[in-house]
Amino acid sequence: MFMYPKGEIAQPIKVAILGSTGSIGTQTLDVISSHPDKFKVVALAAGSNRKLLEEQIERFKPQMYCLVSDKLPGGLSGPEGMLEIAASPQVDLLVVATTGSAGWEPTIEGIRNGKIIALANKEALVMAGRIIVSEAHKHDAIVRPIDSEHSAIWQCLQGEGLGDSKLRRPEGVKRIILTASGGPFRDTPLEEMKQVTPSQALAHPNWRMGNKVTIDSATLMNKGLEVIEAHWLFDMPFEQLDVVIHPQSIVHSMVEFNDGSIKAQLGIPDMRVPIQYALCYPEHSYNSKLGYLDFTKSLELQFYPPDMARFPCLSLAIEAGKKGSTYPAVLSAADDEAVAAFLEGHIGFLDISCIVEEALAKHEAICKDEDIDLESIRQADRWARLFVKSFIKSMKGRSRIEV
Amino acid sequence: MFMYPKGEIAQPIKVAILGSTGSIGTQTLDVISSHPDKFKVVALAAGSNRKLLEEQIERFKPQMYCLVSDKLPGGLSGPEGMLEIAASPQVDLLVVATTGSAGWEPTIEGIRNGKIIALANKEALVMAGRIIVSEAHKHDAIVRPIDSEHSAIWQCLQGEGLGDSKLRRPEGVKRIILTASGGPFRDTPLEEMKQVTPSQALAHPNWRMGNKVTIDSATLMNKGLEVIEAHWLFDMPFEQLDVVIHPQSIVHSMVEFNDGSIKAQLGIPDMRVPIQYALCYPEHSYNSKLGYLDFTKSLELQFYPPDMARFPCLSLAIEAGKKGSTYPAVLSAADDEAVAAFLEGHIGFLDISCIVEEALAKHEAICKDEDIDLESIRQADRWARLFVKSFIKSMKGRSRIEV
Repeated sequence: MFMYPKGEIAQPIKVAILGSTGSIGTQTLDVISSHPDKFKVVALAAGSNRKLLEEQIERFKPQMYCLVSDKLPGGLSGPEGMLEIAASPQVDLLVVATTGSAGWEPTIEGIRNGKIIALANKEALVMAGRIIVSEAHKHDAIVRPIDSEHSAIWQCLQGEGLGDSKLRRPEGVKRIILTASGGPFRDTPLEEMKQVTPSQALAHPNWRMGNKVTIDSATLMNKGLEVIEAHWLFDMPFEQLDVVIHPQSIVHSMVEFNDGSIKAQLGIPDMRVPIQYALCYPEHSYNSKLGYLDFTKSLELQFYPPDMARFPCLSLAIEAGKKGSTYPAVLSAADDEAVAAFLEGHIGFLDISCIVEEALAKHEAICKDEDIDLESIRQADRWARLFVKSFIKSMKGRSRIEV
Repeated sequence: MFMYPKGEIAQPIKVAILGSTGSIGTQTLDVISSHPDKFKVVALAAGSNRKLLEEQIERFKPQMYCLVSDKLPGGLSGPEGMLEIAASPQVDLLVVATTGSAGWEPTIEGIRNGKIIALANKEALVMAGRIIVSEAHKHDAIVRPIDSEHSAIWQCLQGEGLGDSKLRRPEGVKRIILTASGGPFRDTPLEEMKQVTPSQALAHPNWRMGNKVTIDSATLMNKGLEVIEAHWLFDMPFEQLDVVIHPQSIVHSMVEFNDGSIKAQLGIPDMRVPIQYALCYPEHSYNSKLGYLDFTKSLELQFYPPDMARFPCLSLAIEAGKKGSTYPAVLSAADDEAVAAFLEGHIGFLDISCIVEEALAKHEAICKDEDIDLESIRQADRWARLFVKSFIKSMKGRSRIEV
């Protein structure tokens, strides 16, 4: 069995970043540039942003690089280029910061090849959670979360029987409470939400993130996907995973223990904090670029339960997670297509949840939950994308689906 | 060197409670009665509440008992009775829940005799912090905090290089932030605070505690004493210890790390949670009597900096802590006498801080900080009590000191 005992990896740690030109990717490089003694970038992979990838290669001089949609001289190409990086013996730590379903295959490849995985890609755990957990246990792999919520939970579980993240259930935990900002339409009446434009939905009050995740934050689908991720990362039943709206995005998530004691992790909303923690674990390293919460001014933190009626994506996601099998893959793929259609102006904001709901209702599980394999997930993904495209086509002539 | 490796003590753990008839003492017995398999009460000591002590002896059937002010048949008596319990080979874990300076001598005795100390007494660390730390290090002793604030800090430091409490500085900590409810006069104008009666001061908004600590909460002296305790418990310089007002008493304290990440411990204000954690560490044991914070209702948490002008006791305490030597002993003893005089109606509420300030100003350190010993502390304690008594006498004829 492969083992990576703490401290065995010599510094600088050799880091590969998949999705280096995206929001998480660029912030990961920012963090790494603050710790030149601790990390060395050995591989970079980007989807299609050739110009930025070339700049990053020039600056960080990785041994390997991959442009998925094309090819740079001397570089790798296509999804198989990412798999090659994930398997490379040159890599200690693999940051999976791709969006969409581009993330789960390299994640599994990295796990099988003994890499520490720093996981920002949501779809990997949402679509292929059972497979990733099973592979991670088989290879005694470490999967560290980068999402601020899961990083918060992981931090709160330090010293509670959970050290480096092995996707196992901690002891004494009554429930995990994920906080959600509620997005830009937290208090918007349902009637007004029909008319929301992409630019309104892209204006997240607290976090700067990629477009897909920003829209998912506005529908609360993002929180639903995070509940599914938390289910797999911390081996917690859905019944012990709660969501609470917290508009200020200061408390990043909480863990409640059996004695009623709750631990929360908080701070200024800055993705570089969880990114750095996933890289530097178990150290809370000083970084002059990171700020401190200011308690010399008054601070007010609010928490209240989510309005499931206005944000149906949250319960759709939790239901799909509970059903298991290929339902989470359909949820994720249908949402991906629906969000893209919304951003292109083809459908309305509230159509997103209707389309996802329709896809889940029409889907028939491809296999039993316990028999899930990569091919079933791929098949469900393809089915959901085709379904959503043809569903949207069938709407032609109507500018918006009726809700 | 004495060692108590985790798990070596066979259950049921044999517990002695000094101060068993007080607020913390009775709540400790409440917690123990919820875990009859885990704990056995082997010794009880009380100051003067004969009736309640007799009831407790009847119910818990300890092998040893002590009434300090008197003597029960077959029992121990006087402060030396408490020392005998603290030294007894029958005891695994010593809960020090006495108030006032009755706590620090048995604490040191317990440390020297290899007991796990669960410390609720504030004066022990405030007056004799340097000696306790030095003895604890010499005997590799475990000193677990019971105060909700220090328990919160201790919980937040789990997995951060600090396990069971050994009075050593954790790594990566930027500062510790103690929360204070602000007490019943949080928003009371200074002018009105002159007229405050004991019954108004005893009405704490969130916590049910003994009289002395409730008045200390109203003056914020309690928070000042806790800052000194935190200085010794976590080996933190005063410059890295902050106080923030948090009226709801839900967040019990916080730890900020070098990367800007903050961990907070929160929950319903119930002293049985930190008491149980000090007994059951490292487990967060289920206890049907303990409640859970309700996130199905909306919750608002406020934080703002303390008003040092209206609460001079806070800065008096921190200054005395920084000066060291016998100043914290004078602070503590003078406050003890002043609070007693206030409760008896001899002085006004604002006189408490004036008297403590006067005592600190008139005091001359009995020895250098690094030469502090028990005799110097006893001497400073006596001096401060005499000084305050004669100072109050000199006020005769005036109903209140001018402020």
